[in-house]
Amino acid sequence: MENQQNRTEIAQLGEFGLIDHLTQNTEIKHASTLKGIGDDAAVVDNSHQVSVISTDMLVEGVHFDMMYTPMQHLGFKAIAVNVSDICAMNAKATHVLVSIAISNRYSVEALEALYEGIHHACAYFDVDLIGGDTTTSLKGLVISVTAFGAANEQQLSYRNGAKEGDLICVTGDLGAAYVGLQLLEREKNIYLENPNIQPDLENKKHIIGRILRPEARQDIIQYFAEKNIVPTAMMDISDGLSSELLHICKQSACGAIIYETAIPIHAETYAQAQIFNIDPLVCALNGGEDYELVFTIPQSAAAAIEKHEGISVIGKIVAQSEGVRLKSGNDNYYPLEAQGWNAFTSK
Amino acid sequence: MENQQNRTEIAQLGEFGLIDHLTQNTEIKHASTLKGIGDDAAVVDNSHQVSVISTDMLVEGVHFDMMYTPMQHLGFKAIAVNVSDICAMNAKATHVLVSIAISNRYSVEALEALYEGIHHACAYFDVDLIGGDTTTSLKGLVISVTAFGAANEQQLSYRNGAKEGDLICVTGDLGAAYVGLQLLEREKNIYLENPNIQPDLENKKHIIGRILRPEARQDIIQYFAEKNIVPTAMMDISDGLSSELLHICKQSACGAIIYETAIPIHAETYAQAQIFNIDPLVCALNGGEDYELVFTIPQSAAAAIEKHEGISVIGKIVAQSEGVRLKSGNDNYYPLEAQGWNAFTSK
Repeated sequence: MENQQNRTEIAQLGEFGLIDHLTQNTEIKHASTLKGIGDDAAVVDNSHQVSVISTDMLVEGVHFDMMYTPMQHLGFKAIAVNVSDICAMNAKATHVLVSIAISNRYSVEALEALYEGIHHACAYFDVDLIGGDTTTSLKGLVISVTAFGAANEQQLSYRNGAKEGDLICVTGDLGAAYVGLQLLEREKNIYLENPNIQPDLENKKHIIGRILRPEARQDIIQYFAEKNIVPTAMMDISDGLSSELLHICKQSACGAIIYETAIPIHAETYAQAQIFNIDPLVCALNGGEDYELVFTIPQSAAAAIEKHEGISVIGKIVAQSEGVRLKSGNDNYYPLEAQGWNAFTSK
Repeated sequence: MENQQNRTEIAQLGEFGLIDHLTQNTEIKHASTLKGIGDDAAVVDNSHQVSVISTDMLVEGVHFDMMYTPMQHLGFKAIAVNVSDICAMNAKATHVLVSIAISNRYSVEALEALYEGIHHACAYFDVDLIGGDTTTSLKGLVISVTAFGAANEQQLSYRNGAKEGDLICVTGDLGAAYVGLQLLEREKNIYLENPNIQPDLENKKHIIGRILRPEARQDIIQYFAEKNIVPTAMMDISDGLSSELLHICKQSACGAIIYETAIPIHAETYAQAQIFNIDPLVCALNGGEDYELVFTIPQSAAAAIEKHEGISVIGKIVAQSEGVRLKSGNDNYYPLEAQGWNAFTSK
């Protein structure tokens, strides 16, 4: 909870004062940014590359809960999830626009913390903040980010290029964000029942960090560039591995088999899933929000991929008639189902 | 109010079903759109021009009231206000991304109507819809649009290029949106008190149309291109003429004099302002939301500008020491003040 003694009302600064205040530390590092914040629009020089553009909206109460989301982390995450979409095209993120709608429940200090996270993420991912919109909401906080990247056209990875025989790979580990979120929800409920009980988050750094401050795998995109690898298809894992793999197979008109035993799951994820009495595999397949990458490569690229210890080969692309299936540890086959996003379901 | 018999719940379609449903009629008309909706990001080929990028957020209860805002018009307006920002750079809008957050109070039919307006605006302004995000809100509707335009770098009009001696011009007429909004608010209150009284909107087409379905002045940008005119500074009028002119003068380090008698005000605006007992000039100076253009040109371009009956020369740029002033009909001078946006003020 913010310190009430250091509370500046947004109305004290006004719109233009607020925007100036929050964006005064914006550094422009890309020569392609001809005009950043401060005019009707930003101007970017794309020279001979193509632009890759993505947008994502984060809504308080839907995508984050202010009870356990530090403002700095939220700002970082808002940038990271958009950079992740650019990575998923095998492109390098270069510019972001950030729009926020906020109720006057928030102070200027809270927004400063949000922008601290935004600026930190921009520096971390090497992107320029070039514009946005700041407005009022009747309730809660909405953050809408648009990210731009640059790429040579022949380097792009769409969803529709997977070919029979390609290897299916994922980066990092899966399911951590899901169990991290369940843990934060549990601690919130304990706190609401008894504010004197302090949360025990020892040995939970990985799973908590994953949900509050996810990475975008720009390092993997750079590795691809160094090794001259262009994935035949790629997505970032926001809705869950099953959901993303079904998208790739649908758009590429192919099937897939993935191996249960090959799916990377972190020790903390295993341990926490066991405490919650849920199957870690289900977390990894359907959890979502891990912002790792799932991609397919020709077998000719296998050697370079296997050298990278942050990448796991988890299966292969097969004929469309074979469907999209999981092969379990005891050699049974189960069709994968998309269980991802169901926020619209009436409660 | 929507017909309850034709109500489809958003949950019946799910996220991907909803996006497919709403975007199935999206036409791609620009060859530069290499990839539109349906991947992690859109891909745009910019060849040798620069990209001009702007974003705007519309929040229910802040920027629009569903009591009197038809969904189609809202969709159109969301695109128009962003295209207007691109026009204000003297660039041609080419692509848009649309993100919406909606509560399940809205039906699929309501969203269809919103997208009908969005698609209509895209066709009207000749822009491609290339992506977006669709998510849940806890309350109300939030629309965030990012627009892209293309331009040759030397053709751009920033805010900081106005020079002493330049003429100050505006397009169309001013103040209409402000009195239109006041009228809609009055009719809403009458309706809430007595639903049997039908609103009398005879002879109000211009002022109502201006607030519900504003234009973006792409025609003027095209005229500039035909006549080889590049405004030395330009903005679109969203916060009010005074506010925009103060921005131009601040960024251009100059002063300005505008003439009361030269400011274009529509007959309907005059008539309605008189009914409300407010000064039409105040509406024109501070009203905002007209989405006309204010720009400065060297006197050498005066002849071409004066030929266009939709453009009014309203003043001239002077030395910074002279300030930013209005010369009244009886030759008095008044300093202009920004009264625009005050939505953050506590109520």
